[in-house]
Amino acid sequence: MAVGQVSFPQMNPIAGISLGTTNAGIKQTVRADILVVQMAEGSSCAAVFTQNAFCAAPVHVAKAHLSQSPRWLLINSGNANAGTGASGMSNALFTCEAVAKLVSGAATQVLPFSTGVIGEPLAVDKIEHALPNAIAQLAEENWTAAAQAIMTTDTFAKGATRCIEVAGEKITINGISKGAGMIQPNMATMLGFMATDAKISSALLQEILSFSAEQSFNRITVDGDTSTNDACVLMASGCSAAPEITAESPYYQVFADAVLAVCKELAELIIRDGEGATKLMRIVVEEALHDAEAVQVAKTIAHSPLVKTAFFASDPNWGRILAAVGRAGVENMDLDKVQLYLGDVCIVENGGRAASYTEQAGQAVMNKEEITVTVRLGRGVATQEVLTCDFSYDYVKINAEYRS
Amino acid sequence: MAVGQVSFPQMNPIAGISLGTTNAGIKQTVRADILVVQMAEGSSCAAVFTQNAFCAAPVHVAKAHLSQSPRWLLINSGNANAGTGASGMSNALFTCEAVAKLVSGAATQVLPFSTGVIGEPLAVDKIEHALPNAIAQLAEENWTAAAQAIMTTDTFAKGATRCIEVAGEKITINGISKGAGMIQPNMATMLGFMATDAKISSALLQEILSFSAEQSFNRITVDGDTSTNDACVLMASGCSAAPEITAESPYYQVFADAVLAVCKELAELIIRDGEGATKLMRIVVEEALHDAEAVQVAKTIAHSPLVKTAFFASDPNWGRILAAVGRAGVENMDLDKVQLYLGDVCIVENGGRAASYTEQAGQAVMNKEEITVTVRLGRGVATQEVLTCDFSYDYVKINAEYRS
Repeated sequence: MAVGQVSFPQMNPIAGISLGTTNAGIKQTVRADILVVQMAEGSSCAAVFTQNAFCAAPVHVAKAHLSQSPRWLLINSGNANAGTGASGMSNALFTCEAVAKLVSGAATQVLPFSTGVIGEPLAVDKIEHALPNAIAQLAEENWTAAAQAIMTTDTFAKGATRCIEVAGEKITINGISKGAGMIQPNMATMLGFMATDAKISSALLQEILSFSAEQSFNRITVDGDTSTNDACVLMASGCSAAPEITAESPYYQVFADAVLAVCKELAELIIRDGEGATKLMRIVVEEALHDAEAVQVAKTIAHSPLVKTAFFASDPNWGRILAAVGRAGVENMDLDKVQLYLGDVCIVENGGRAASYTEQAGQAVMNKEEITVTVRLGRGVATQEVLTCDFSYDYVKINAEYRS
Repeated sequence: MAVGQVSFPQMNPIAGISLGTTNAGIKQTVRADILVVQMAEGSSCAAVFTQNAFCAAPVHVAKAHLSQSPRWLLINSGNANAGTGASGMSNALFTCEAVAKLVSGAATQVLPFSTGVIGEPLAVDKIEHALPNAIAQLAEENWTAAAQAIMTTDTFAKGATRCIEVAGEKITINGISKGAGMIQPNMATMLGFMATDAKISSALLQEILSFSAEQSFNRITVDGDTSTNDACVLMASGCSAAPEITAESPYYQVFADAVLAVCKELAELIIRDGEGATKLMRIVVEEALHDAEAVQVAKTIAHSPLVKTAFFASDPNWGRILAAVGRAGVENMDLDKVQLYLGDVCIVENGGRAASYTEQAGQAVMNKEEITVTVRLGRGVATQEVLTCDFSYDYVKINAEYRS
């Protein structure tokens, strides 16, 4: 089940970035579950990682390797290699060495990523066995296969792409991501991999990625559970004919905006494919004192099981939204100044139900598949938006049966 | 559905505290939905209320009236009178006046409480019409009927009682409460009403109630949603023959312990009857730096939809518990020092799965109806416990259909 009609976009190859997938039999026996990405020599690379204190072994390793001029990514689905202690660390390093041997690189130039069940030993023998095939498949055209290989409970592959012109030359930015549960990225995301042929320093790339991830992946939540394995990578091969993008370049903002657009599209796709999702909700908090307050209120609404089940039932039970705003921890909130809208319909003003509100008008909005909830706090001028989905029978079903 | 076999206890009357119920037709058409409690003149009364910023109109009124030597409580189920603006306030005051007229008291001596759907106008005419009958029913024996009258989505009436001896004289403490959703009391509880025939000042009663509520009602959560209407009241009629309980009295601690025991039992009953609950989980966090840290970690686990659905499925998916600990916001946590137990079974130590752990042993614990999860943080000596329940299909069903 997914919210809206979603098809994988036509994605142009990125010169200097090749992708190879194969099946290693980690959990699934048929689908590809290994992805290797190779960057041209001299590529830049930036990444953001989960803030979960128990971050997975591959996250530790990828963080350490990020400054060592990375040339390869190795991603496996089906096993998170998290909560696996010392053996998890040596397993992650072992897979880096296995890639390095096959490509005549250094193990420190490989960034490993894992996603799947937590606490199971990673089947490194299976990965080692499958790697030659994945590397044999390396090609710049494989974005769709790559997006499929990183899926876990996702029901569709997720991709987004943008093209910009820099000094008359084309630059492409491609991205893929996966969800679909344990989603409340914190300063990072679920797995997201983006690449561009732009020429840009790693430092500047990191600045752009950090900002973009904060405004996109860090503004979505399925269940409020921050994964141990979240990571988002932006690679730049520099193979485009366009001049280098610098902080002073007139094209800096154009490029940064395109990266943000790809991030936002990937983040929204994760919510559209949220576990059991039948509805997409945009929670917009306006007139907050500052951004953090707006995000805090929006996430409290987005995490409320009572709000999420009401949306599943298409029930305009706005009292639950108001109760969530009230428990969001905002000091000295004045209920009389708070306004609440479902779509364009004003529900709450002056501390109670709006005089103009009718249940029919609220019901008409709730019947839609995509719904915007707007809360005006009447305290300031900050606005932030959080995307989430509803809580359905299928959310319980998917997560009750995840390991069976 | 409820966890465990629960029957309403045999509750002795409390001299000086009488209770009367009736049906006013607020939402249910058959069941009693109005409860009036009358305290003997000279009774003491203490209360704690929700910290939700959008607390309901009756909460505002009850807070204001608490210092005016209250003699009566008026509780209605079926409508929360929350999010109802200025008319909600005048409706709450109107019901106080309606009681006052019938009993020849002052409206300021009436504490109003409401529970039910948020945002609907309170049918004060129905309440006014029904009140004479409720007052005609006033009697000291009506604890069971009282517990039934305050139910909303509860599947059974909740009561707890303790008797202590003070200087050779018997003192009784009775309590009733209701759940069963929007449960994460914050410095208060869902509705809980307790009474005793002890002689004790309101100030001391408040001290005991505040401490007990913090250690009981504030340590439970069904869905993390703090209600707009939480309130907990402790009345003391002073009608017992026992001497007054003072701060210096040797019986102070005996009395306080008995109140805490009643609070804890009522709180646990709310969880046993949590919406859709099939399991009761005790989340015990040990070796925390301080109590607040222990509660924070325990509540993060207790609120995780992924943890709750895994318990529903009896799946020992402990990675989800570890991920919740990791995102609980504890600074500088050392995974290598963290231990995780399901019942008596050690699952995690030294940063990974315990060598002794077997899936069968974990499964045997998960198959039980009542499960203790123990997390040792290895940081200090503070211990705190939070009670919660699982997330089932029925949780979604109950909350998707609540207003229909």
